[in-house]
Amino acid sequence: MRFDVITLFPDFFTSALESGLLGKALAKQIAQVNLVNPRDFAMDKHRRVDDEPYGGGAGMLLKPEPIFAAVESLPILPRREVILMSPQGQPLNQPLLQELASNYDQLILICGHYEGVDERVVEHLVTREVSLGDFVLTCGEIPALAIINGVVRLLPGTVGKVESLKAESFEDGLLDYPQYTRPAIFRGWEVPEVLRSGNHQEIDRWRKQQQIQRTKERRPDLWERWIETHQTDVDRE
Amino acid sequence: MRFDVITLFPDFFTSALESGLLGKALAKQIAQVNLVNPRDFAMDKHRRVDDEPYGGGAGMLLKPEPIFAAVESLPILPRREVILMSPQGQPLNQPLLQELASNYDQLILICGHYEGVDERVVEHLVTREVSLGDFVLTCGEIPALAIINGVVRLLPGTVGKVESLKAESFEDGLLDYPQYTRPAIFRGWEVPEVLRSGNHQEIDRWRKQQQIQRTKERRPDLWERWIETHQTDVDRE
Repeated sequence: MRFDVITLFPDFFTSALESGLLGKALAKQIAQVNLVNPRDFAMDKHRRVDDEPYGGGAGMLLKPEPIFAAVESLPILPRREVILMSPQGQPLNQPLLQELASNYDQLILICGHYEGVDERVVEHLVTREVSLGDFVLTCGEIPALAIINGVVRLLPGTVGKVESLKAESFEDGLLDYPQYTRPAIFRGWEVPEVLRSGNHQEIDRWRKQQQIQRTKERRPDLWERWIETHQTDVDRE
Repeated sequence: MRFDVITLFPDFFTSALESGLLGKALAKQIAQVNLVNPRDFAMDKHRRVDDEPYGGGAGMLLKPEPIFAAVESLPILPRREVILMSPQGQPLNQPLLQELASNYDQLILICGHYEGVDERVVEHLVTREVSLGDFVLTCGEIPALAIINGVVRLLPGTVGKVESLKAESFEDGLLDYPQYTRPAIFRGWEVPEVLRSGNHQEIDRWRKQQQIQRTKERRPDLWERWIETHQTDVDRE
């Protein structure tokens, strides 16, 4: 997988891409991240990348020319998507990460800044807008980092054991169950008896119940979606 | 505002905290970010911070002792929240960022890793679990960075003009309108006539219509919520 990140702040990524599991995966060449600064494609002598919005309003917008030029400078891989990180986009979720990890060889991530990006970039260059969530950040670099991390995590070789991927939150549409490790008693607080029982059928049953109970209580929206597709599982319990 | 980030990978943050608008805000002391490694609080000679889950399963969990010790080593400010970044938490949104920016002096952000964190941390130390969204990342550092960025953005002095905050996505519950900047014609694609008209009443009207139309089309969930509180505005249109 090749990522091309169109960013005014390539330095933002330096330490984040070297750290933890993602850093290891990139070192193993499971994916490549190429950082491109649209400022290098600005055509006037001041290397200007932003300008005032038509119609008035506070703040500056990213101009279209340097972004088109930056994207058009890149090699073209067969299965390629040009993604703008934008609060107006499709909300990021696990199925979208899975789709991006499975269906593409090249993800071009355009990071917005200031008040946003000239809409002609969205209309004529971008193939998909993705939103990290219903909140506003000062930049698209954090959302781009989330996509890189979430996609690379799903590529073969990043996470040691495949079960580790399958058992996790959202992979089956429910929240995760609570987990405990040593010590068995910490400050008087004990690990639930059932987890220390060694009875794996009981443990699986307890964990599933916890997942269902948490999802119901905390995320009725996820629960509604889950129940529609799993009605028979619930009846069987 | 003081942020204390409990992280096994403090290096992750180095370049991201120095870059862009957030870097400027931190340089101006609008907020402070203190990085604490729970490994420095591990008590055995191998500085072990993780262990296997009770009841079996792939992957490792963060042990409770180093995390309690790391948090308990911090100074205590009067209005303080201990937040675990976790997919099981309350989904991050703009009202939550506003609440965190307004109501607290100290946000302690615990970054999960591996399969997660011993549940006793959640039960007895954490005051709130926050989720970046319904997807899985390899670490809690990216969600922590999103909270720091989104909260600092709302603090006085970070964003130049206050209107710049007010007009943006989600601050009023609708998606943003499309924006255009120079050139007026780029590769034959024109900026909409109305935005170049100078008629500010028409421009405001067009922008509001665009916001409503986009939100309806792209995010029926947001639209449903908006319509409940703004029915009279719509009738007036």
